[in-house]
Amino acid sequence: MAGLDGGPLVVGVDLGGTKILAGVVSADNRILGRGKRTTPAKDGGPAILQAMTECVDEALVQAGVSRDAIAAGGIGSPGPLDVHTGVILFSANLNVKNYPIGPELAAVLDAPVVVRNDVRVGGYGEFVLGAGRGYRNVISAFVGTGIGGCIIVDGRIVTGSTENAGEIGHIIIKAGGPKCGCGQRGCMEALSSKTAIAGRVAKAVKKKTPTVLGAKMARKGGRLKSGDLAEAVADNDSVAVREVRRAAHFLGLGLGGLVNVLGPEIVIIGGGVAQALGDSWLDLVRVSARRQILTDPEGKIQIVRASLGDDAAVLGAALMARESLLQS
Amino acid sequence: MAGLDGGPLVVGVDLGGTKILAGVVSADNRILGRGKRTTPAKDGGPAILQAMTECVDEALVQAGVSRDAIAAGGIGSPGPLDVHTGVILFSANLNVKNYPIGPELAAVLDAPVVVRNDVRVGGYGEFVLGAGRGYRNVISAFVGTGIGGCIIVDGRIVTGSTENAGEIGHIIIKAGGPKCGCGQRGCMEALSSKTAIAGRVAKAVKKKTPTVLGAKMARKGGRLKSGDLAEAVADNDSVAVREVRRAAHFLGLGLGGLVNVLGPEIVIIGGGVAQALGDSWLDLVRVSARRQILTDPEGKIQIVRASLGDDAAVLGAALMARESLLQS
Repeated sequence: MAGLDGGPLVVGVDLGGTKILAGVVSADNRILGRGKRTTPAKDGGPAILQAMTECVDEALVQAGVSRDAIAAGGIGSPGPLDVHTGVILFSANLNVKNYPIGPELAAVLDAPVVVRNDVRVGGYGEFVLGAGRGYRNVISAFVGTGIGGCIIVDGRIVTGSTENAGEIGHIIIKAGGPKCGCGQRGCMEALSSKTAIAGRVAKAVKKKTPTVLGAKMARKGGRLKSGDLAEAVADNDSVAVREVRRAAHFLGLGLGGLVNVLGPEIVIIGGGVAQALGDSWLDLVRVSARRQILTDPEGKIQIVRASLGDDAAVLGAALMARESLLQS
Repeated sequence: MAGLDGGPLVVGVDLGGTKILAGVVSADNRILGRGKRTTPAKDGGPAILQAMTECVDEALVQAGVSRDAIAAGGIGSPGPLDVHTGVILFSANLNVKNYPIGPELAAVLDAPVVVRNDVRVGGYGEFVLGAGRGYRNVISAFVGTGIGGCIIVDGRIVTGSTENAGEIGHIIIKAGGPKCGCGQRGCMEALSSKTAIAGRVAKAVKKKTPTVLGAKMARKGGRLKSGDLAEAVADNDSVAVREVRRAAHFLGLGLGGLVNVLGPEIVIIGGGVAQALGDSWLDLVRVSARRQILTDPEGKIQIVRASLGDDAAVLGAALMARESLLQS
């Protein structure tokens, strides 16, 4: 079970709605091999396990080790989850109900596997190895189709009594505002996620407001890709610019308010939207957040982009796998 | 320095904008003697120290002990504060700037004195000895002239990197909404505090909407007392009922959002408005909060009123004084 550098190897898996990523990770947190598969999102639990296993095996081959070199595994998964038993209770994006993904992968690897919330795993990766390195109090926000978060207080993830803390997408920003997927109105997710922007763009298209996004979204069955949005902004498309600005404004207000509540040293913003829109977008979020923050008169609190990209969840899951070994 | 029951006695002081409360507190957290003085809010630091000293002496007399029985003191104070030196940097409600209230009271008592944020001290009192007893993760909200909070994660107060965490009044609830004292628009404090309600009532009065509160506020120079508001609600005054309901709704949305972020076991609501308006008001807050909470499908998270009333800050300050002895 010894790794190349003397410490045991672990596997980190990022189970996403569209792709599965796996990494074989050394004791000094380097990814020695990677795997990638399309998520068979509609085909149920066993198909996901099958794809995940292939993905892990691919990473093992690239790392040049066999399954029995792996001391533990970690999976970042959408949920809700039963983290104690490693079961996905259900998922909006995967056609899965009460599927024991953790025990199943553990049987494949003949090693213990922990399953944790995907956003939390990504936030933990950024905290320990990415933009949050060296800090003790962190708010991580991941902005994509939805908005999720991971709160670190005094060096530890806030899990809450329900194990579901970190749902920062569902703070209210504009009471009575646009409908949210959760059923309420005016949540941050309903104002600042890619889904929220897509909804506004679709309305503009309906009103015949000229925008390059109309044709692009029509080609993708109404879906908006972060990359297309970023291109449209770069081309100064007025609808894209206006909606991105608006979404960034509300995101800043929400994150600024959370800074007042939690007083972190750093706010880390990742996810597809953040990756695609880059620093000019981050600047908009920053301006809006700083106006809302009253607990930091000297402007010491950092507001930065996530630095690990797609590796965040793989590394975070690997870290949690390793920690589970130490605790057991 | 031994108290009546073998443990040392400490003094807890609640320095408020209108009154100073002091208590001599035993090792088993009973208040053995109390003092009360009107805060000389306009007369500067030395006048406040003088009133505080009289207040503490009154508590000592009632407890039947002398100053030298006191092992340590704690002060809950408005701020911002320098908690390391015990200095009030400034205060909106007290005419004080850079006043070393901690060292000054320490000289009077010949014992160490800690100074902490008043809201945090009250929240800590409720956490350890009041409604939060036995819980590990708590959101306390104090609703009065303003709205403050105290966040407990895993049994410890979240102080944040700025020492100013807990400013829950300055999360955004209605972007672009009513102006807040902090300069932003639509903060929870601008929608749900007594000040916010008073502003809306004043507008209604200006529009000649009939309400008993018009005459009451006019008599008090435009100020709204929580007791008058509660009476008007009890008498079914339509303006009072409408505005209280509205404020409770927004408070619930804000607190519900924070529950999604932090996943506490319990939300405790105290402060003048909560005390005066009682359980029917709390029910309105609860309904609105529960709608926003998505991390608690089984409704296990408690939303309750604070239980210590005016003793919360005195006891919280005393607890912090005692803990400072253990740490030194």
